[in-house]
Amino acid sequence: MLKFFYAAKTCALASHIVLEQIGCPYEGVKLDFASQQQRTAEYLAVNPKGRVPALVTDRGVITETPAILLYLAQTFPQAGLAPLDDPFELAQAQAVNSYMASTVHVAHAHKRRGARWADDLAAQESMQRKVGANMIECFELIEREMLRGPWVLGEALSICDAYLFTMTTWLPGDGVDIERFTRVADHHRRMLALPAVQRTMALHA
Amino acid sequence: MLKFFYAAKTCALASHIVLEQIGCPYEGVKLDFASQQQRTAEYLAVNPKGRVPALVTDRGVITETPAILLYLAQTFPQAGLAPLDDPFELAQAQAVNSYMASTVHVAHAHKRRGARWADDLAAQESMQRKVGANMIECFELIEREMLRGPWVLGEALSICDAYLFTMTTWLPGDGVDIERFTRVADHHRRMLALPAVQRTMALHA
Repeated sequence: MLKFFYAAKTCALASHIVLEQIGCPYEGVKLDFASQQQRTAEYLAVNPKGRVPALVTDRGVITETPAILLYLAQTFPQAGLAPLDDPFELAQAQAVNSYMASTVHVAHAHKRRGARWADDLAAQESMQRKVGANMIECFELIEREMLRGPWVLGEALSICDAYLFTMTTWLPGDGVDIERFTRVADHHRRMLALPAVQRTMALHA
Repeated sequence: MLKFFYAAKTCALASHIVLEQIGCPYEGVKLDFASQQQRTAEYLAVNPKGRVPALVTDRGVITETPAILLYLAQTFPQAGLAPLDDPFELAQAQAVNSYMASTVHVAHAHKRRGARWADDLAAQESMQRKVGANMIECFELIEREMLRGPWVLGEALSICDAYLFTMTTWLPGDGVDIERFTRVADHHRRMLALPAVQRTMALHA
């Protein structure tokens, strides 16, 4: 059985929603970041990066959200969560997920994780001041260029929706009103109506 | 025919090496970042993010390195550049590529692209001071956990090798000696011996 390591309200939410949407059996293990449970020797043996998510399969551990999402879509094809038979469409899905991971998540991370990139507090505070503007820039691009509607890839729910939803939940904490982006806000409401999303959100409360 | 937009010595090098390794016909278009060619209306119509790489196919544009790499591996399967028939191994490849995009590239970007994340110069200088240490931390993890040898995924050359090679070329500019990482340095020399890498490096000189 799959074992899924996550922490509340982190980017692990995206993979978690996909696990719930697929409906496959899995064991969820919630780590408490406040007590640095991601830094214990026990967890570092699972994921040497000391981060979440991590998905433990019978063949080994998978890390990094875009990799976990594609793996779940490929191993549960009946869930129809990625355009697996069309390399061009799959590339569009991967491009969205890669943008979430390397640009949107990174923009957000400068709010609380500034110590990764600068040691002094003044620099970290300077980064924090730019997070809202950067998230707005990202979501303007998403609204205009990436979200086809009603779902990210168009008519079918996919792994990209879980990832976009996760990033969108971070906007209020970054001082950005979701309603500023009409189509993203509609997408967010559509996601909140899914039972799988509601179950996952309860686990991340 | 594929059309490939790149700029010298950027992360586009990874996709470029894979194009050369595959040996498919493509038209390369070199953008000059110094004169902001990635910000022209003409290029923004290709890639609204104003970044490279961008791969123009007969069905549309693909952006983001991990997406382009997987697309090339999938559409030229005879090149054998990804474990396409094994979702778990493909997930390992995707995890490596996602780490390159969202952690290693981002660590490096704080040297010259600090203005993305903070407006004041003192903060940007503070970020610059931490780049070397962050790149060392990334490459210690790569050396210890990701590079199976002789290639990233083991016995077969893959899309991951082009991406790791690209990140490794950035180390000296970040003040980090490649030889500090014995296995990465071996990998780098092995890549430099490939004709496809030599051809691509000449285009990025």
